[in-house]
Amino acid sequence: MPRPEPDTDTAATPGAAEVLALLDHARELTNPVLRTVVDRLVPPMDTVAAYHFGWIDAQGSPTDGDSGKAVRPLLSLLAAEAAGASPETGVPGAVAVELVHNFSLLHDDLMDGDEQRRHRDTVWKVHGPAQAILVGDALFALACELLLELDTPEAARAARRLNTATRRLIDGQAQDISYEHRESVSVAECLEMEGNKTGALLACACSIGAVLAGAGDEAADGLERFGLHLGLAFQAVDDVLGIWGEPAVTGKQTWSDLRQRKKSLPVCAALAAGGPASAELAKTLAADAKRADDRNTDAKSDFDEEEFAARAALIEEAGGRRWTQEEAQRQHESALASLDGVKMPDDIRERFVALADFVVVRRH
Amino acid sequence: MPRPEPDTDTAATPGAAEVLALLDHARELTNPVLRTVVDRLVPPMDTVAAYHFGWIDAQGSPTDGDSGKAVRPLLSLLAAEAAGASPETGVPGAVAVELVHNFSLLHDDLMDGDEQRRHRDTVWKVHGPAQAILVGDALFALACELLLELDTPEAARAARRLNTATRRLIDGQAQDISYEHRESVSVAECLEMEGNKTGALLACACSIGAVLAGAGDEAADGLERFGLHLGLAFQAVDDVLGIWGEPAVTGKQTWSDLRQRKKSLPVCAALAAGGPASAELAKTLAADAKRADDRNTDAKSDFDEEEFAARAALIEEAGGRRWTQEEAQRQHESALASLDGVKMPDDIRERFVALADFVVVRRH
Repeated sequence: MPRPEPDTDTAATPGAAEVLALLDHARELTNPVLRTVVDRLVPPMDTVAAYHFGWIDAQGSPTDGDSGKAVRPLLSLLAAEAAGASPETGVPGAVAVELVHNFSLLHDDLMDGDEQRRHRDTVWKVHGPAQAILVGDALFALACELLLELDTPEAARAARRLNTATRRLIDGQAQDISYEHRESVSVAECLEMEGNKTGALLACACSIGAVLAGAGDEAADGLERFGLHLGLAFQAVDDVLGIWGEPAVTGKQTWSDLRQRKKSLPVCAALAAGGPASAELAKTLAADAKRADDRNTDAKSDFDEEEFAARAALIEEAGGRRWTQEEAQRQHESALASLDGVKMPDDIRERFVALADFVVVRRH
Repeated sequence: MPRPEPDTDTAATPGAAEVLALLDHARELTNPVLRTVVDRLVPPMDTVAAYHFGWIDAQGSPTDGDSGKAVRPLLSLLAAEAAGASPETGVPGAVAVELVHNFSLLHDDLMDGDEQRRHRDTVWKVHGPAQAILVGDALFALACELLLELDTPEAARAARRLNTATRRLIDGQAQDISYEHRESVSVAECLEMEGNKTGALLACACSIGAVLAGAGDEAADGLERFGLHLGLAFQAVDDVLGIWGEPAVTGKQTWSDLRQRKKSLPVCAALAAGGPASAELAKTLAADAKRADDRNTDAKSDFDEEEFAARAALIEEAGGRRWTQEEAQRQHESALASLDGVKMPDDIRERFVALADFVVVRRH
């Protein structure tokens, strides 16, 4: 069922300009701590991490590079405020979540063979695979360190939730990779994988600030449900961009997910849809899998642009693109419904809602 | 100054047979928990981890393979007893340390390009680099999970100490890799690297059981000092085996460390020694470094066996082998001196001493 287009600002909800200002503020609060923590690394890991975060270029010169949109940090700060504390209370959680997120980017880019991230060469491409592994490991360890050195029961609970999210994130990456080698993946399997790979850490971002502020498990779990659905909505949008996104916008190659045989939502939904285009797609993917087996390679496909375009057209014709866009809306609605179940000041709730609209709706 | 050969059993110290029995008992207490925790991983990570630990072969059939000597687990159990608790109290710490140790093996083998470990093909060689990265990440996360889910202040302190050790372990690997590209490394730099890479986690194994048993920071720090020196002694022995060890015994290639241009203690000590063999070695390593630069490769050297044998002979002639053997004895003595500063029941102290003798002296 189609829902009203939530892109229209209401009187109660902050608009895009206000969300951008909130994101800027979140970056201002968290980035200095992030830089200080990363500075703890011994050379050359400090330099490699600074390159990854976009603070320096490949030659080591400082840049004005940003390190992402600060959506996760803002969620953590809002969570602290939702629990009645200052946004500053959520900062260690925000930084820890960013560290885990970037640990996963460093390792995933290497495992997936991705050469570009945020319009720049990836770390393994510039500094080699060993540094990508090492610095990823170090960022994960730093995340736990930052929380545990607070030495409070709240911080220990926060560390436990972050760790659970990290385990799910790793599970999700394992599932994502194993799906690449399969001819077919069900929509349910794909949603489980995306809930792990993207949803769990976003969920943790939504609860960790509240946990640090002393919120109970019920409130924290409610915030995590909001974050999980938000993450699934975000990923559905991302899955559409992963096939049909413009490289200039996404910072990735054209047909990025198809090149890697990702069984993302549009592919799984198209395979499940039935009909001639769905059958044709299934035949094509089966032939791909056989071809890969024959060559005993899990490297990227060596098709040309036109073959990728033909696959993308099949997925669209079978309804995979539309289903995924609708799924983004469904997950967005579930996120808002979950938020309704958590008590918090009205102004903080409105910011959560505005941020959810911003990351899901405005990227369509 | 030479010290009396500590290989001679005294009446007070358990002999090798008793140490082997203690190690068996530690394995019996910890392995079931380790297996249960590893079973939490989603496929195919559970299988890959089971292969790594030696529980199944590359085809997935169960083996009677052991998963190492259980020195770290035994240290953790003894630490719990040193603090007046049952050995069982130390089990989660023992398992967590083992998980971190194996996380580092999985990643280091990949970074170093090592194809053999414990007389078997390494995980990246059998299951590919992506699985080695992923399963390593998962074991690290499981280690934190196991401690934090105990949900006690003692477990949070234990997790913090383990995390600090893990950060140092990663620092050590970063230093080890960066030294490979240098012509010369001082003995002090090498000891710092080995203290991080090997000492920190062994130190943590010596304290974590006591921390879980409620020991204070002073006792835990004392046990960590013992473990750090023990780790340095162990590594010095290992460095000798890394050059002159028999492949049938070590499970690695001949001249293993030389193939990777490791600046291990015998090399650093030989370079620092002065004299004709030392100068000749320095010239050789400078030529190696130039050759590697010219080819822009950090892959393994492509020398033949005789060239490695010649390098090993130079290191020995310059005194690097003897100095490292003496350093193992010095660190062993420092370990025992550190142990003297920690209060504990006499029978537990004797077991620590016997285990230290076992891992350092008997491997000479």
